[in-house]
Amino acid sequence: MEKLFYFSDLFGVAVFSITGALMAGRKSMDLFGVLVIAVITALGGGTLRDAILDNHPVAWIRDDTYILVATLAAVGTVLWVRLTRPINETGLLVADAFGLAVFTVIGTEIALQHDTPVSAAVIMGVMTGVAGGVMRDVLCNEIPMIFQKEIYATACIAGSLVFIGLLELGVAAWIATCLSMATVLLARLAAIRWRLSLPRFHLLDRI
Amino acid sequence: MEKLFYFSDLFGVAVFSITGALMAGRKSMDLFGVLVIAVITALGGGTLRDAILDNHPVAWIRDDTYILVATLAAVGTVLWVRLTRPINETGLLVADAFGLAVFTVIGTEIALQHDTPVSAAVIMGVMTGVAGGVMRDVLCNEIPMIFQKEIYATACIAGSLVFIGLLELGVAAWIATCLSMATVLLARLAAIRWRLSLPRFHLLDRI
Amino acid sequence: MEKLFYFSDLFGVAVFSITGALMAGRKSMDLFGVLVIAVITALGGGTLRDAILDNHPVAWIRDDTYILVATLAAVGTVLWVRLTRPINETGLLVADAFGLAVFTVIGTEIALQHDTPVSAAVIMGVMTGVAGGVMRDVLCNEIPMIFQKEIYATACIAGSLVFIGLLELGVAAWIATCLSMATVLLARLAAIRWRLSLPRFHLLDRI
Repeated sequence: MEKLFYFSDLFGVAVFSITGALMAGRKSMDLFGVLVIAVITALGGGTLRDAILDNHPVAWIRDDTYILVATLAAVGTVLWVRLTRPINETGLLVADAFGLAVFTVIGTEIALQHDTPVSAAVIMGVMTGVAGGVMRDVLCNEIPMIFQKEIYATACIAGSLVFIGLLELGVAAWIATCLSMATVLLARLAAIRWRLSLPRFHLLDRI
Repeated sequence: MEKLFYFSDLFGVAVFSITGALMAGRKSMDLFGVLVIAVITALGGGTLRDAILDNHPVAWIRDDTYILVATLAAVGTVLWVRLTRPINETGLLVADAFGLAVFTVIGTEIALQHDTPVSAAVIMGVMTGVAGGVMRDVLCNEIPMIFQKEIYATACIAGSLVFIGLLELGVAAWIATCLSMATVLLARLAAIRWRLSLPRFHLLDRI
Repeated sequence: MEKLFYFSDLFGVAVFSITGALMAGRKSMDLFGVLVIAVITALGGGTLRDAILDNHPVAWIRDDTYILVATLAAVGTVLWVRLTRPINETGLLVADAFGLAVFTVIGTEIALQHDTPVSAAVIMGVMTGVAGGVMRDVLCNEIPMIFQKEIYATACIAGSLVFIGLLELGVAAWIATCLSMATVLLARLAAIRWRLSLPRFHLLDRI
């Protein structure tokens, strides 16, 4: 179980690294830029969470497998695109949804281990899931995608709440983990499939 | 006194959350985006200060009232605007000046409790006051307003210095608190009233 | 030796502060904006490193000389430009390369003192060298220069690796320090002289 969690985490790192490398490529960055953006996308959310929670040492300092995986995923992405293989957008979105699910539950769990209140644990779950992508977008000088696209972070909130609720009800940790990850995954896949989005809040005409 | 401080702090959180929600609305973000920008604007400055000072746990992890207030203020803003009630810009600016005053003094005080030198305490005061707004502007892809508008952070520096100076002179803490908050508030209100601004530093034509 | 290191560090702070002040001037910020951008450029990289490494108190909280030097450098830059003295761009680039070399080696060394793996130590070296400049560019609403210009962070990686490698080989610390700083300096100067850059990764036409 512990091991499955670890490999899921590394899978999430790889997927997020790929999305970072692709965004950097869209901005015509050089190879170093691609690598940095990829690594920040993959590890930024967890690092921010750990700095705020005072949870030291952060994962990639404790265990250099994280940096290795993020780097390999970024280099692999560049090579893959260079060799003109097309990118399977759907596959990438599904993988991204899976990574999001893993990161959200891990973030929530680590926060609960630090005895945070529920609201802070949910924020930590969401932060772990989305902050890397926000950093990627800010560094690429874009308004972060999560604020403008279909349901994304809302899926994290739902998953995080399901996780906390099931634990409160006394459900075994591994069942709570699986069900809450499934919540994030299904919410995100449904959002992609039917282009679900939250209503927007327009102010332009009023202020 | 302690209680007054606490409620002033929460008032500052609410006000900053409202400014974040309004800015997010100007960018036509979805409801989640509005909420996140609002919470970051309200709590970002204090969180950054605590992470740099190693002052753990941060306020909103220790006490979930902060997140509750920030969330309610953001949701309330959306509802208020939706119901087509106009926004009282002047009232908002005055409230913002009050929030700025509270945050600046709290930030300075926490830094002094950590035995920082005066220069670092002033920076912590300013950071607590303005960093949330800077994060809001960066996430909304704007050059931070505080670097381009009339006197804002300069008011924080003045208030922070007054606070430290009065404490050095042996003035009672609550008097120092009130006078330094008044400094920030008056400096800011005067800046708004007479559109005071610092001279700009133009380089465009030279480099 | 210790003293030489300290003064080199302060020299790096001054140089980075100047680059921050000049960039802020290009954006027509007011005097406060210039000061803040300058200080963040000078101290941001080290602060981020210390927050992630849990290396408290951070340098400028422990010793207020850092803030003093950064502030004086920024104010001096404004005065210098106001008095219509031209800016020696080449001199500035060489000084910047020297600052980059100092920061990279200091960052790597502090990480090694915290027993990080090699990969994390290299990242800490690069982060110390370049993160201040990245913050400067993000706050000025630009895509960070290091992702788009000639070899910059790659020089940091090389210097960081040389430093770690020489220490592993049992070379005395001061020799490792000098040789690795020379590596960064020479790589950067060569990049400026012959406009060396890494290949870019274009995706625009494909996705």
